[in-house]
Amino acid sequence: MSDFVHERHKDPTRLIRPRELIVACVPMRSNVNISQIARTASACAVEKMIICGNASLISKIARDATSHLCVSTHRSLSPVLKKLKQEGYRIVGIEQASHSQNIHHFSFARRTVLVIGNERLGISDDILGQLDDVIEIPVWGMPHSYNAASAANMALYEYCRQFPEG
Amino acid sequence: MSDFVHERHKDPTRLIRPRELIVACVPMRSNVNISQIARTASACAVEKMIICGNASLISKIARDATSHLCVSTHRSLSPVLKKLKQEGYRIVGIEQASHSQNIHHFSFARRTVLVIGNERLGISDDILGQLDDVIEIPVWGMPHSYNAASAANMALYEYCRQFPEG
Repeated sequence: MSDFVHERHKDPTRLIRPRELIVACVPMRSNVNISQIARTASACAVEKMIICGNASLISKIARDATSHLCVSTHRSLSPVLKKLKQEGYRIVGIEQASHSQNIHHFSFARRTVLVIGNERLGISDDILGQLDDVIEIPVWGMPHSYNAASAANMALYEYCRQFPEG
Repeated sequence: MSDFVHERHKDPTRLIRPRELIVACVPMRSNVNISQIARTASACAVEKMIICGNASLISKIARDATSHLCVSTHRSLSPVLKKLKQEGYRIVGIEQASHSQNIHHFSFARRTVLVIGNERLGISDDILGQLDDVIEIPVWGMPHSYNAASAANMALYEYCRQFPEG
């Protein structure tokens, strides 16, 4: 009736160049969320992730991200974002803000830092002031918001959809 | 320097018709994953979700999905998928399988049941035999797979991207 046969552990898709996407998390409440974001980022072949304060990866959740993703920890995000902007990265936050753009119509720059906000507080005003773009993921129903890791996950999906070859 | 100002709790996007997407989970290992899928589905204004066996939603994670999403529990998925197929739903599973299509190039039917596989075992052969399509989300890096809830989340994002108005 069907020709669908399981093929677990297929080869991954090849990139023709390394990803220039960096994922940067503001100080978060939950290491579970950070670890889920790390796992997805690693599976997307993102090479660098920035986390703040006392955050750390839970290896059972982050899986191979603990060994394949270069995670750097900073006291605050602001100085490192400033430096990355000077290196030509576009700083893009996911947040509900004035002038934010619908991610469905947003074209990512290859060289992007994706900023993920805190679960409750989102992205603080000082970091908002450093962003080149704010993108918003549409919601249609209650609770009118996505979990922080889910939103990061969707943005990673969209970036990779736009750059399937890196 | 920036005109980005927080606007938490913006109004959601309006649908011009109710979503005809149903999310169906095979028996899963983790109610956390099921609850995360439910939260995202509810925020996407999905109205129906099907779960199996002893699964249940954790309200702290699923949030408003517990009151806004109609969740029905079945002993197994097979009979309910058969019935939904007769009602004109296209049955689409996320899985690595022979003849699976890259989700980046896949056009969803509006009337779709999205089947989510088990965290370890994926979608079993009997259910694979009932699918009209198998879609695959590309992976580029280790661990060469997404968490089940993350994969569901990406597929929900893609469906809603294709049907922003329902």
